[in-house]
Amino acid sequence: MNMYDLIQKKKTGGALTQEEIYWMVNGFTNGEIPDYQMSAMMMAIFFKGMTREETLHLTMSMAKSGEMLDLSKIPGIKADKHSTGGVGDKTSLALLPMVSACGLNIAKMSGRGLGHTGGTIDKLESFPGFRTDISIETFEKNASELGIALMGQTAELAPADKKLYALRDVTATVDQMSLIASSIMSKKLAAGADLIVLDVKTGSGAFMKSEEDSRALGEEMVRIGKDAGRKVSAVISDMDQPLGRAVGNILEVKEAIATLKGEGPQDFTKLCMTLGCQMLLAGGVAGSIDEAEMKLFEVVKNGSALNKLADLVKGQGGDASYVYEPDKLDQAPLKVEVKAPASGFIQRILCDEVGLCSLILGGGRRTKEDVIDLRVGLVLEKKVGDEVREGDVIAVLHAADEKSAGEAMERYLAAVTIGAEKPEERKLIHGIIE
Amino acid sequence: MNMYDLIQKKKTGGALTQEEIYWMVNGFTNGEIPDYQMSAMMMAIFFKGMTREETLHLTMSMAKSGEMLDLSKIPGIKADKHSTGGVGDKTSLALLPMVSACGLNIAKMSGRGLGHTGGTIDKLESFPGFRTDISIETFEKNASELGIALMGQTAELAPADKKLYALRDVTATVDQMSLIASSIMSKKLAAGADLIVLDVKTGSGAFMKSEEDSRALGEEMVRIGKDAGRKVSAVISDMDQPLGRAVGNILEVKEAIATLKGEGPQDFTKLCMTLGCQMLLAGGVAGSIDEAEMKLFEVVKNGSALNKLADLVKGQGGDASYVYEPDKLDQAPLKVEVKAPASGFIQRILCDEVGLCSLILGGGRRTKEDVIDLRVGLVLEKKVGDEVREGDVIAVLHAADEKSAGEAMERYLAAVTIGAEKPEERKLIHGIIE
Repeated sequence: MNMYDLIQKKKTGGALTQEEIYWMVNGFTNGEIPDYQMSAMMMAIFFKGMTREETLHLTMSMAKSGEMLDLSKIPGIKADKHSTGGVGDKTSLALLPMVSACGLNIAKMSGRGLGHTGGTIDKLESFPGFRTDISIETFEKNASELGIALMGQTAELAPADKKLYALRDVTATVDQMSLIASSIMSKKLAAGADLIVLDVKTGSGAFMKSEEDSRALGEEMVRIGKDAGRKVSAVISDMDQPLGRAVGNILEVKEAIATLKGEGPQDFTKLCMTLGCQMLLAGGVAGSIDEAEMKLFEVVKNGSALNKLADLVKGQGGDASYVYEPDKLDQAPLKVEVKAPASGFIQRILCDEVGLCSLILGGGRRTKEDVIDLRVGLVLEKKVGDEVREGDVIAVLHAADEKSAGEAMERYLAAVTIGAEKPEERKLIHGIIE
Repeated sequence: MNMYDLIQKKKTGGALTQEEIYWMVNGFTNGEIPDYQMSAMMMAIFFKGMTREETLHLTMSMAKSGEMLDLSKIPGIKADKHSTGGVGDKTSLALLPMVSACGLNIAKMSGRGLGHTGGTIDKLESFPGFRTDISIETFEKNASELGIALMGQTAELAPADKKLYALRDVTATVDQMSLIASSIMSKKLAAGADLIVLDVKTGSGAFMKSEEDSRALGEEMVRIGKDAGRKVSAVISDMDQPLGRAVGNILEVKEAIATLKGEGPQDFTKLCMTLGCQMLLAGGVAGSIDEAEMKLFEVVKNGSALNKLADLVKGQGGDASYVYEPDKLDQAPLKVEVKAPASGFIQRILCDEVGLCSLILGGGRRTKEDVIDLRVGLVLEKKVGDEVREGDVIAVLHAADEKSAGEAMERYLAAVTIGAEKPEERKLIHGIIE
């Protein structure tokens, strides 16, 4: 077998066999196949695509390139969740305690990564003492006994994907559906859960801008997951404006806590309910959507969802009292109001620009070495469709200093469009793929 | 400017500007643009092609990546010739003295390269004393005074092409018409001639197997040459069986000498006449094909074409007496007849296999370090369409030893198909592109 022949085969429209794909991925990962051949292959795949079988083999070969987590010591069905990412996306913080409180075991591995805010594990570190560098034994024990555990990535999951993505990133070969799907799914499959719910964002602030592309990506990922023998479904959810109202680590934790008490923003609550229903149904905890909704409402109403977050925090060394008294969480020294420069309707809030505000305020990482200021961020007082009068507060910036507040203020004002007409309402849930 | 954007542009069907192409080729040549980005670009070009302008800019930027030969000290129009290569292709040896004898100045730079026989300069070294490592002054003087000079490549012509071709060769991106054409033409344009005639081979033994592809390549090269301000035409000639009868260095020299005396094989003679007419017409030496043919016939008949070969040999330090007494040239110690294994018509002679026979006998180079045995090779006594009886001599192997002769014999017999039916005759000249 040689790489030249495989490139030629793909270029002329052929399908690579399982053996060929494993050989290629292994050879690339261990450095035997040079980057220049792999990038030519990726470009050929961009133009010629991959069959369902090829996509599965690519995903599995990348998943198997590193450690495949074995969660078999944890009883029952182990559930995981993945979001393609967006601004104000604190979904895991509320969703996972909710479904765990309903009886589904959550065993999730998370990375930190870069972005406008930290990831789920950064946010959980808002609770004093909370640790994600727990041992695999503690992880298994907590997932078994408490029904919920979140662990920072110790082992490197799917190293082949990491190397391949880095190459695709500099050779303009990222935007191919099967490659995107296999990249995400290789890590999810390696992380070992039986059940995975995917939150595929769509809209101007999402990786996939169009509903069509988002749906295609969701379908591809669900197909891979099923072909790999896992229970997988995807929810296509809106990311044309930030989700909920809070953007920033502690601010998002507070919004998640409010949501676990039934006091969260309507859009964010609805998304958690929709994803939760998918998980409960797939996990056999509920027999119908109605039953699943009822269970989720119940755990919010009776406080067991909030208690589950407290269990999670306590189980990993954190001070659970903060779950019940979130005002004790650190606060930024400055709160600066952003006021509407004109009267009318909020027509647009650019997600990427709001994300940048959070970054400017210090809430995210530009490079791996950056230290996040967990206190800072912003709270959107007005969202798309809301009517405002000139001078109304449309957002509050939580800043560490005047300088970053000033910059973020300017940026935020540029991110918001106010006009005379009430904009058409966008759906929050664009579809579900099972 | 950055390479990612250029790949993205090409991938989505855009055309690169002159500035972008020069920036890319320079950056790649000096190592600033990594191989993995360039190979992704080549694959994108494979799928999206290049416009006429892009192809010209790519060719010129590669030509200018090294030395551009300045032949302006040589008076008149300087002519060059290029063949896409084939088995038994000794065309330059006969053609160039013929057209030079008609009054066109030949100033040609040649490489050695790999192959089943040596290149033109290897073959000329059959004449004792002949040197191709002449100074640029001798080259200019001979081209001016004798009307013919051939020089081994001293300077590296079009180093960008060399580097790019090596990358394409291992990433399955060779077979794209504009890339092939720009690769060939970059070297030809750098070599400085005003007039270039291209011999584009077609058939099973050619780089381009189909007439359609050969024509497309010829058209692309002629277009580039004209856009670059040179006089260029192309002849599409047959390479479905070896050209002429001799394959091997000294054997081919002898066949070329016979042809310069009007005693060469019919197909080879006709090809030289066709290419010669193109050169004389383009060079203004003849006003019509009829006039050009007459002139070429005349220089063969009156001996001035043969004398011109003698001038070339003598002018570069060789013993010209061998031109008039070719039997003095070295001979292989063994001559082994290959006999027809059956009666019938010769239906097929596989070029590539005949080339391999020459290589096995020691007549070519597999690696740059190989030393060529100029004496060895084979002479085809029967060609496609000839009727044979079992036991007739169909070829004579000129070998250095029994072992290589035995191997070549086996190979040659496998290369030839004898059958009951007379095969359809293939045209020698498939077309001319002006």
